[in-house]
Amino acid sequence: MNDLFLRACKRQPVERTPIWLMRQAGRCLPEYRKVREGTDFTTLCRTPDLAVEVSLQPLERLGVDAVIFFSDILVPAEAMGFKIDFVPGPVVESPVRTAADVDRVRVTDPEEGVPFVYEILRNLRRELEGRVPLIGFAASPFTLAAYLIEGQGSRNFEKTKGLFAEDPRTAHRFLEKVTQQTESYLVAQAKAGAQAIQLFDTWAGLLNRDEYREFVLPYATRILDRLKQEDVARIYFALNGAHLMEEVRKCGADVIGVDWRTDLSTAAQALDGPFALQGNLDPCVLMAGPEVIERRALEVLNQAKGLPGHIFNLGHGVLPTTPVEHVEALVRIVQAYRG
Amino acid sequence: MNDLFLRACKRQPVERTPIWLMRQAGRCLPEYRKVREGTDFTTLCRTPDLAVEVSLQPLERLGVDAVIFFSDILVPAEAMGFKIDFVPGPVVESPVRTAADVDRVRVTDPEEGVPFVYEILRNLRRELEGRVPLIGFAASPFTLAAYLIEGQGSRNFEKTKGLFAEDPRTAHRFLEKVTQQTESYLVAQAKAGAQAIQLFDTWAGLLNRDEYREFVLPYATRILDRLKQEDVARIYFALNGAHLMEEVRKCGADVIGVDWRTDLSTAAQALDGPFALQGNLDPCVLMAGPEVIERRALEVLNQAKGLPGHIFNLGHGVLPTTPVEHVEALVRIVQAYRG
Repeated sequence: MNDLFLRACKRQPVERTPIWLMRQAGRCLPEYRKVREGTDFTTLCRTPDLAVEVSLQPLERLGVDAVIFFSDILVPAEAMGFKIDFVPGPVVESPVRTAADVDRVRVTDPEEGVPFVYEILRNLRRELEGRVPLIGFAASPFTLAAYLIEGQGSRNFEKTKGLFAEDPRTAHRFLEKVTQQTESYLVAQAKAGAQAIQLFDTWAGLLNRDEYREFVLPYATRILDRLKQEDVARIYFALNGAHLMEEVRKCGADVIGVDWRTDLSTAAQALDGPFALQGNLDPCVLMAGPEVIERRALEVLNQAKGLPGHIFNLGHGVLPTTPVEHVEALVRIVQAYRG
Repeated sequence: MNDLFLRACKRQPVERTPIWLMRQAGRCLPEYRKVREGTDFTTLCRTPDLAVEVSLQPLERLGVDAVIFFSDILVPAEAMGFKIDFVPGPVVESPVRTAADVDRVRVTDPEEGVPFVYEILRNLRRELEGRVPLIGFAASPFTLAAYLIEGQGSRNFEKTKGLFAEDPRTAHRFLEKVTQQTESYLVAQAKAGAQAIQLFDTWAGLLNRDEYREFVLPYATRILDRLKQEDVARIYFALNGAHLMEEVRKCGADVIGVDWRTDLSTAAQALDGPFALQGNLDPCVLMAGPEVIERRALEVLNQAKGLPGHIFNLGHGVLPTTPVEHVEALVRIVQAYRG
């Protein structure tokens, strides 16, 4: 039983730094692309046998120290009545723009709305047989709401910020519903076998500190607080959050994910609290060869040396064009490192 | 003669805060869209009469306190032998990936390579008749090089960062050439009538501090230093640069542009030097109505109160979908403000 990841999350002593990678199950793996040849993205997320298979691929090929279940951060929106197409980026059929739009949003039982999620987690936990811990995840309420307001990915999320500025009451009513749904979605993940939960705040970095304090932090914190009652390690990751560190430190997670922009020692100083840190090699470094990867990975490991808990990861997801041998090399390098 | 903008750049007393807006000449103006109906983007940049016309439109409609000449940050690459199409985003015909690619890059006289730029500036300066100051600009060498390596806009700029990591010598050789070209491109802008020069570092925020220190700052600083010999105010703007502030402060500009993520008082504290600040209302706020715009603009103005020099601007360019009446309202609000 390799529980390095869970011990690092709890800032307990570990023999070596554990590693897993955001988007480790995905397009950089040829065996993933093979599964995708016959199956579209949505079907893959909704078909337990296939989702379990691709979730396990990085364990089998790379030997990572944790497995995250294969899914998408928009999946829980289905349980709220949203229809989403992937073309290939997500497009929301009826985005939320008005108070009336918020009225029609339902908060439902996720085990009825998206039962396949829990079947995937239960099957994965069984198939893992304790080899490595299992990670569940969701978007933060803000990040999910931003997609559902904007209707698709966006460079600026101007519709979201426009609504926040123009009609904060409606925005909060929507965030409240999304928070309720996300909370039950994640509590059920824990009960279905997830041993850690990561909350992804992919778009938080587009906000200034005031907006973050009003529209992001309270909702993320509520979910992280509720998850304290479950037996899970709680990870919070705000992409591009250097300017938000003094707020992020109030979220109450066990682990804070740090993107590649801020080195881990600077982040630890800014966060100044009882957190393990997760990160933060720039995924672009995996475009270069093994020598460069080794040098840069060692920089990250050395920065993390004095920290009470460190989980090695990238500073964002694996890029689809990454050569798989480079990912293999990274995992070997990190797992061979002994402080 | 309204020289508020130049006085604010030099941190001299002003009766009120001057305002101009990045991308003020562009798609949010119906009179701009009318010109574009019959003319593609590249032709517009290369045709002095039309470029002068659209550069002046925001002065006539909005009454801004400075005019920036209409062009694109990729224009100087033409003088280096690059062919660029706009479809509508820029696509570079033969991007730079190898040492041999760098060899074929030419550094040439910009007044021969892109003479239209200087005709636009001379004509604009004459037509302005001193009403407001004229701003010239270029991308920082890093940001221009990143486009020319990547071949197009990119979310991650992984080819650029891959080259930096794998072959820094080739990267530096290329940055050296781009710096030489940009330097003469901007010195000639000053001699053609530009009274201020803004260096745009649009992609700097994708780098960590070490990369910024090695691949961005020395080249930007060299250009800003050289421009000291010309009679121009020098503005440096690194988008998404909150994590880079301690390096940005070494650039030696007169004015530092700040994006909307960091409030001006926090930025002033981090920069802690003899700079005027430019910024930083979130362009997304202009999606909301005039009441919200007023409240948020006053927040920016109040944060800037104690600063020795402040030029009001957005924290990034005007978004194409911005209602023009909202931009008009913003300019009125800022110009009516008296500390």
